[in-house]
Amino acid sequence: MMDHLDNILAGAARARLRRWVALAALAVVSAASAIGAEPQAPTSAQVPGYFRMQLGSFDVTALYDGHVGIDAALLGGAGRATIDRALASAFQTRSAALQTAVNGYLVRTDAHLILVDTGTAKLFGDRLGFLPQNLQAAGYSPADVDTVLLTHLHPDHAGGLLTSEGKMAFPNAQVFVPKADADYWLSREAAAAAPKDKQALFAMSRDAVAPYLKAGRLIVFEPGQTLREGVRAVPAPGHTPGHTAYLFSSGTQSLLAWGDIIHNAAVQFPHPEVSIEFDSDQRRAISTRRDLLGQATSNRWWVAGAHLPFPGLGRIQPGADRSYRWIPAEYLPVHASP
Amino acid sequence: MMDHLDNILAGAARARLRRWVALAALAVVSAASAIGAEPQAPTSAQVPGYFRMQLGSFDVTALYDGHVGIDAALLGGAGRATIDRALASAFQTRSAALQTAVNGYLVRTDAHLILVDTGTAKLFGDRLGFLPQNLQAAGYSPADVDTVLLTHLHPDHAGGLLTSEGKMAFPNAQVFVPKADADYWLSREAAAAAPKDKQALFAMSRDAVAPYLKAGRLIVFEPGQTLREGVRAVPAPGHTPGHTAYLFSSGTQSLLAWGDIIHNAAVQFPHPEVSIEFDSDQRRAISTRRDLLGQATSNRWWVAGAHLPFPGLGRIQPGADRSYRWIPAEYLPVHASP
Repeated sequence: MMDHLDNILAGAARARLRRWVALAALAVVSAASAIGAEPQAPTSAQVPGYFRMQLGSFDVTALYDGHVGIDAALLGGAGRATIDRALASAFQTRSAALQTAVNGYLVRTDAHLILVDTGTAKLFGDRLGFLPQNLQAAGYSPADVDTVLLTHLHPDHAGGLLTSEGKMAFPNAQVFVPKADADYWLSREAAAAAPKDKQALFAMSRDAVAPYLKAGRLIVFEPGQTLREGVRAVPAPGHTPGHTAYLFSSGTQSLLAWGDIIHNAAVQFPHPEVSIEFDSDQRRAISTRRDLLGQATSNRWWVAGAHLPFPGLGRIQPGADRSYRWIPAEYLPVHASP
Repeated sequence: MMDHLDNILAGAARARLRRWVALAALAVVSAASAIGAEPQAPTSAQVPGYFRMQLGSFDVTALYDGHVGIDAALLGGAGRATIDRALASAFQTRSAALQTAVNGYLVRTDAHLILVDTGTAKLFGDRLGFLPQNLQAAGYSPADVDTVLLTHLHPDHAGGLLTSEGKMAFPNAQVFVPKADADYWLSREAAAAAPKDKQALFAMSRDAVAPYLKAGRLIVFEPGQTLREGVRAVPAPGHTPGHTAYLFSSGTQSLLAWGDIIHNAAVQFPHPEVSIEFDSDQRRAISTRRDLLGQATSNRWWVAGAHLPFPGLGRIQPGADRSYRWIPAEYLPVHASP
């Protein structure tokens, strides 16, 4: 398996991942300079970063981890003028870092409390790592979570598995990792074969899952199967080799927690052909994005997007020329069935 | 002045206002049946209904009062198929009451704490009247508010002037009411001349402002002037005779708190020619809507809409065929300058 993936990822993908480490660091710096200071007075505090909706008998809570700034130059696959026009339609410009949320999703099914992705902890600096705080604000404790589903092993999704002391942040959870991502990111051989400036990513992944592995609570799975009642793993490769979406279904409603299918809503909904440097296989990421956009639209699924504007919960409408539009969920004391 | 307005409002407008009282009651019932139950367990509570952004040196907080259900049959001015298509694009249908937020806006300028509209108190039932609770959750006290600006005197904007005991809900505030609305809604002659089933609306308005009038803190003004430093009253007639928007400006940024310029975002942004039964002069409401949409777009103003999906803060892009698109503000711990 590893050899196969290494072959696939060899040339261009390696170079991209190398660049990714540098870019992630850059992104944090950009965000810090481009986005205003934190509140001082208590009356300037923003509302806590959680947002609830109901899905049949399930209860879904979006959890805000923070935001990064992404350089628009990382977006490719369409002309610069097309990308700039799409950015401008959302009042964004490439002269500033693109404000990009990092969201996790907590789903209370009939039998489980499931967290999809865990945020960054403090791996990406002080503007992120707020997921545990927002989980508590929403009325939960990390110890309540019995299942963690990772869409992939990038540090803004798996980093929050650990506390700042390096302990398990979710001490009672089984942690599910898609096999192709585990094969790649947890492999010492793959790390050793990788360029030095890429090895930090491998180390972050290994560190994040280590205590769960030791406790016998790391579950490596092949997607396509039902992991919990009402929760199916949907293969969504391209962003990483094992990138996986999770489809939650209750009653007549379904919600697809799709991880990194879209990094910039203003650009990639109207232009799904736009990819991002972070994608390990951009061509495959594009076809997966088109596939899931089509499925979500025709099935009228709700979507939960790790990098869509917080809370990143909404539905999708098809437009002309294979374009799509994002329709965010509306605030309600409790979200009603549509 | 009153005679003039009575003439204007005589025929059709009278009938509409009569219907309005019945519809408002109906709307509350519809909302109660169409929209799900309130949360039971603490972990099912929605995040508090406030949302913050910065505007130059000003601090803007959207405050959620609750929601009503509006009957789609109240929308007119475009064909039924056009309206249904616009609703469908936002996953709404006319078979259910249209979920419609009621929002107020608190603006801390350099010298004042200003509330634009006060919500419903309990005039419209138990699903509304949460503005004071959300104001407190946002870290403020009603006693801190020194200025209340009313966009108009309908009970979902002025009702919150009173506590449930009929006392001043904002005991330290001056209350600003546009003259044409005061002339109409506070006039005993107008009320006496009105049909019986319409008189409740007049009584609600009079009751709401009464203690402020008695305390010498009701200020009736002609729009077009600066009311506080950085706060200009912009005439926006049509929805009511004196309907007024408030333009807040600090540094290079401006925000227009535009009251009831739009009741349904899914329909009226793409189709500003669509009016609603509640408008006392629908033709004038349409031309005012077009005018303010044009101004907000060309000046890149932020907009705060009393009935836009909460938080109702965002900006506007022009589209084809005199249509517009709503771009909601994005969540940030503190909103950065764009």
